[in-house]
Amino acid sequence: MTEKSIKELCSDVFPFWDTISDEQKTNLLRSTQKISFERGTNIHDGGECTGIILVKSGSLRVYMLSEDGKEVTLYRLFAGDISILSASCVLNSITFDVFVDAEEDSECVIVGGCAFAELCENSHEAQVFALESALACFSDVMWVMQQILFMSLDKRLAIFLLDELAQQGGDTIKLTHEQIAKYMGSAREVVSRMVKYFATEGIVESSRGGIRVLDKPKLRRIAG
Amino acid sequence: MTEKSIKELCSDVFPFWDTISDEQKTNLLRSTQKISFERGTNIHDGGECTGIILVKSGSLRVYMLSEDGKEVTLYRLFAGDISILSASCVLNSITFDVFVDAEEDSECVIVGGCAFAELCENSHEAQVFALESALACFSDVMWVMQQILFMSLDKRLAIFLLDELAQQGGDTIKLTHEQIAKYMGSAREVVSRMVKYFATEGIVESSRGGIRVLDKPKLRRIAG
Repeated sequence: MTEKSIKELCSDVFPFWDTISDEQKTNLLRSTQKISFERGTNIHDGGECTGIILVKSGSLRVYMLSEDGKEVTLYRLFAGDISILSASCVLNSITFDVFVDAEEDSECVIVGGCAFAELCENSHEAQVFALESALACFSDVMWVMQQILFMSLDKRLAIFLLDELAQQGGDTIKLTHEQIAKYMGSAREVVSRMVKYFATEGIVESSRGGIRVLDKPKLRRIAG
Repeated sequence: MTEKSIKELCSDVFPFWDTISDEQKTNLLRSTQKISFERGTNIHDGGECTGIILVKSGSLRVYMLSEDGKEVTLYRLFAGDISILSASCVLNSITFDVFVDAEEDSECVIVGGCAFAELCENSHEAQVFALESALACFSDVMWVMQQILFMSLDKRLAIFLLDELAQQGGDTIKLTHEQIAKYMGSAREVVSRMVKYFATEGIVESSRGGIRVLDKPKLRRIAG
């Protein structure tokens, strides 16, 4: 990937790109680098300001982490998406920490937080873009919160399995109950019990590699 | 309250006030009205754009509501605070609904959402203020979410009781277990069990009017 294509990516992803000066572009690109992450790598771990992460390929998972290691997935990012909550120095009003992992082998472009913060001081468009991107995350998080707090587990699991199918293709979700519980912010026992219930209903069957969906229409009805 | 004092309140609460023109001020004030709400009144119920609510006195509760009537309190607003999430027409990136009730008799000033949205189109400062205010709510909500998802109920209840004492004064929390459960996003039975446990530990006692705290230092230790 040459510098030109990083520039092209920035131009694609940042709606304010054409409104900033050549000097501002150069400053931003100077603090921008392409990094490849292997599946499972932690990219951002709360505290420091990693910067704005543009996803070129692969997928990232953004999650909350408790002191005792419990996780709740907030949302996922795919090619063309950006992670703004990993740039805490750009967003003064954000006082919480999130964590970002590569869920697949992923190619990313990271725009340094300090450089972006500096740009925001001089570009209204860049500032509004950062704030609005963060607010869009707020909407995503509220959706997850509603799922977790208000929705019954059968419905949540059905939605989760359908989402995974849609992403992975095929009819099998290649995840352990432990992993599903982690992604759903639930406990393994709770997920296992519900998978077993789905199995007795003929909706899924446990296979060696994960969970195979037998009756997708029924799963869709539960998902509502 | 005369128009002058509404103007003064706007000047106190909106940091961008001095940066907008007299005409913009007049337009905003034309869509601004003082309203008194009795304790328990619903002020904003999700859907429509009620506007930006400035709290002059009293207290408001901002919460999520599920289809089947379950509530989770997100945060409370007191004198000098503003409610921005009730102005959905100002915030395009916000796609979820919140609800706002007067928790005490409250005097408020409501700035019409359309007028404020129009101002945001012409004032960078007003737009950034709206976005940053909404992001501050995001931080509040993430804190609540961490409490609910990650924290054990004893700790959550201890924090809740201490917060109520700090707000109400005295040593008695004048709420039923039902109300506490509602505010904490939990179930009455769960709260009752924990209150009973606190009672056996000599931390609280159930009184006619609510819950009396006997051992505040111990409650503080549980709250961590």
